[in-house]
Amino acid sequence: MSDSARTVLFVLGVLLATLSVAMFAPGIVDLQIGGAAAYAFFGAGVVGAVVGLIMAMLGSGGDKTLSARGAIILTGGSWFMLALAAAVPLKLSGIDVSWTDALFEATSGITTTGATVLTGLQDLPPGILLWRSILQWIGGVGIIVTAMAIWPLLGIGGMQLFRLESSDASEKALPRAGQIAKAVGFVYLLLTGACAIAYMAAGMGAFDAINHAMTTVATGGFSTHDGSIGYFASGGADLVALLFMVLAGLPFILYVRAAGGRPDVLVSDPQARVFLVVAFVAAMLLTLWLAGHPPPEDQTLPGWRMAAVNAVSILTGTGYASANYGLWGGAAVAMFFVLMFVGGCAGSTTCSVKVFRYQIAASAMKAYIAQYARPHAVVPIRYRGQVVPDDTVRSVLGFFFLFFATFAVSAALLAMIGLDTVTAISGAATTLANVGPGLGDIIGPAGTFQTLPDAAKWVMIATMLIGRLEIMVVLVMLAPGFWAR
Amino acid sequence: MSDSARTVLFVLGVLLATLSVAMFAPGIVDLQIGGAAAYAFFGAGVVGAVVGLIMAMLGSGGDKTLSARGAIILTGGSWFMLALAAAVPLKLSGIDVSWTDALFEATSGITTTGATVLTGLQDLPPGILLWRSILQWIGGVGIIVTAMAIWPLLGIGGMQLFRLESSDASEKALPRAGQIAKAVGFVYLLLTGACAIAYMAAGMGAFDAINHAMTTVATGGFSTHDGSIGYFASGGADLVALLFMVLAGLPFILYVRAAGGRPDVLVSDPQARVFLVVAFVAAMLLTLWLAGHPPPEDQTLPGWRMAAVNAVSILTGTGYASANYGLWGGAAVAMFFVLMFVGGCAGSTTCSVKVFRYQIAASAMKAYIAQYARPHAVVPIRYRGQVVPDDTVRSVLGFFFLFFATFAVSAALLAMIGLDTVTAISGAATTLANVGPGLGDIIGPAGTFQTLPDAAKWVMIATMLIGRLEIMVVLVMLAPGFWAR
Repeated sequence: MSDSARTVLFVLGVLLATLSVAMFAPGIVDLQIGGAAAYAFFGAGVVGAVVGLIMAMLGSGGDKTLSARGAIILTGGSWFMLALAAAVPLKLSGIDVSWTDALFEATSGITTTGATVLTGLQDLPPGILLWRSILQWIGGVGIIVTAMAIWPLLGIGGMQLFRLESSDASEKALPRAGQIAKAVGFVYLLLTGACAIAYMAAGMGAFDAINHAMTTVATGGFSTHDGSIGYFASGGADLVALLFMVLAGLPFILYVRAAGGRPDVLVSDPQARVFLVVAFVAAMLLTLWLAGHPPPEDQTLPGWRMAAVNAVSILTGTGYASANYGLWGGAAVAMFFVLMFVGGCAGSTTCSVKVFRYQIAASAMKAYIAQYARPHAVVPIRYRGQVVPDDTVRSVLGFFFLFFATFAVSAALLAMIGLDTVTAISGAATTLANVGPGLGDIIGPAGTFQTLPDAAKWVMIATMLIGRLEIMVVLVMLAPGFWAR
Repeated sequence: MSDSARTVLFVLGVLLATLSVAMFAPGIVDLQIGGAAAYAFFGAGVVGAVVGLIMAMLGSGGDKTLSARGAIILTGGSWFMLALAAAVPLKLSGIDVSWTDALFEATSGITTTGATVLTGLQDLPPGILLWRSILQWIGGVGIIVTAMAIWPLLGIGGMQLFRLESSDASEKALPRAGQIAKAVGFVYLLLTGACAIAYMAAGMGAFDAINHAMTTVATGGFSTHDGSIGYFASGGADLVALLFMVLAGLPFILYVRAAGGRPDVLVSDPQARVFLVVAFVAAMLLTLWLAGHPPPEDQTLPGWRMAAVNAVSILTGTGYASANYGLWGGAAVAMFFVLMFVGGCAGSTTCSVKVFRYQIAASAMKAYIAQYARPHAVVPIRYRGQVVPDDTVRSVLGFFFLFFATFAVSAALLAMIGLDTVTAISGAATTLANVGPGLGDIIGPAGTFQTLPDAAKWVMIATMLIGRLEIMVVLVMLAPGFWAR
């Protein structure tokens, strides 16, 4: 076994053991109510922890280097393995789910998607609810660390822009990931705690507040109630969600830098600025639209508040709903569809294409067009004051191609399985972009993924993972030459 | 006035005069039935010819060079000007159309889209029908010459791949365009003649045959009957359409080369091969689907025939319908939607993204992925045996970005105007890709664009032109620096 393979096995083992130990928390919660759920969590937790420790032991002793190939296998493998392991207690907990449903729910959790096959959430064992929230919370911090420590070194979809030091080599990925995890983990914990307190101040009970805090900061979107955040809105919980979804959509490294004496980076970062502007403009446009086209359902919340909360929820890929915006009419629905393809900032917990790629693509198009207008001028593509190398631009543009090609293929597959056009198209988009709810009567904000055929759920399990792993990681692992010696 | 500006004015004048003289043909046809139509064509024809000749005279005398900027203005300006001029006789002909409708129909003609706001086609003055067909026929040969003579020099969306000689400079675009027009024009005429004869053999009357021959070879899709090609199918006209749509989707330069003693290029050209495979596979998949899901309407045609004709019609952006495939169920409808984004070969009359761009993007992705699998290998991107330069790859990937961004923005605009989701999304796709019919009850194969609000028609007029001009031409003309001295 090469050193790199050892390292992969070691880290996968540590991750599996960590996830498994985390299962004790919902186990303890469900002990109070009795039933199968508690034992499912304890049993799966013990088995998973043992398997994880064995893996870690088998992988220990190397020099902890990581090749580029190892880094791909590690990131791809960890999400897949954690989704599988997390599904086990869900299936064994005694709630009425198939293995497909359990894996769908677990994948939706660990990828911070938030699409759910469970209904009657408020009547489920609380441990199940807590487990769903924990999955999203772990998935959220996991993606920040991966996106900051590993993908810049691999150059996944233009992420090389976010190399922290020019001398970075993938061999040093692991120690670097550890440092970043420590710095960012602290911020992540702090934000989650602040969010939970704010939810309690807005009238939520402690259990609901903790669960929602975890799924808000992870921009995951699982709720403890079928009515999602809208159910808790009377006390202002939707506005708490709005604030913390915006905060979770910003690059977490900015908080670390701000805490280190550079608070100005929070407003001067070009990606953060554009993200905030997009969120504001989307909320404004929807508010104007709602003023002219009041929704047919009785609403107690003012229009701007429904517009802002739901727009930011979809933009950041959280997936909470404070109203059934599927009934807001064509332009609003189209806007929500477009927002799915935007996402937040790189280095946040959000998913989808992300703001910086649009910035690079726009710069590239501008440079390209300027070249025609002034054929003899040299127009470099700049980002954050630096000239962007050609291969980074190509890698960003390639990401767009892959993202939309994957979207088209998934939508076609879902339609072939028999979903109607709106469900197929929005289902592909919402799972690939890790948003949560789709559009239409079936999987829209007032619907459920439960009734979809199993084949459709498997396609979506795949698209959730592909989307969370920025497409490239999965494609590279599927390439014929990748597994050859 | 610079030499390049003179050249632009000269060519625009010649084009306008040519189009105007062509108006005499429908004028003569309508003389027989009397009424306003004939005089509208003669009147507009005379005025247009005079204006065109004046423009040509004002522009004559230069040395006929053309700058890159001039080439952009020429291609952008000619389509826009011809659409405007072609709309005049439609409006004045006495049929019941608004100016918006007349411009929509003329733009749909000259861009070879084939979306129509006219119904009861079979009862219209025959001159009107002939004029619509002539517009598509002119638009078809126009795009071949432009795509072969001018865009490769400008490098629009990767078209630099099709430079015929490495020493080409944009200054020589005009004489080159003339040579290409002669060689290709002959093939175009020949194909049109053969197609008309085949249609007559399949039982069409001479008038219908000539009209359909013109709109088939142009992959335009206007018909002389509300039932489109399906109305004439009993004698096999749909199969004639199938054959000639495929032929019109191939690069026309291949016919010239084949006639010059290289018949092998017709099968060895990689773009032509992939195009034929895509057409075959799409037809096969739809045939299989129809076998399992027979359409609800009574059909006299066998499944494979409906599948092949309609699939190739959408793939090539022709837009004929031999059945109401909107009723074929989710997967079939999704397939038609995806086919809209494919298109035929560069250098054909077809529109949309086109096959070679998918080939380049696929090669780029393959190279990109191979790089991860074997970090130390150098994996060049090849096309037709040649290494593709980096800036060409970027230009192709940029085209995808622009195409899908334009699609998303147009769909959002149409939804904001008030169209339902399916009409907005498919309407944006079908006009940007210059296909013709959309999906859904309103603009689907059994519907009409007539009932759309005027604002939606204006958006679609814009998207038809933007799509036909490969996005970049229009964007460059809109760039702030472009019109500055």
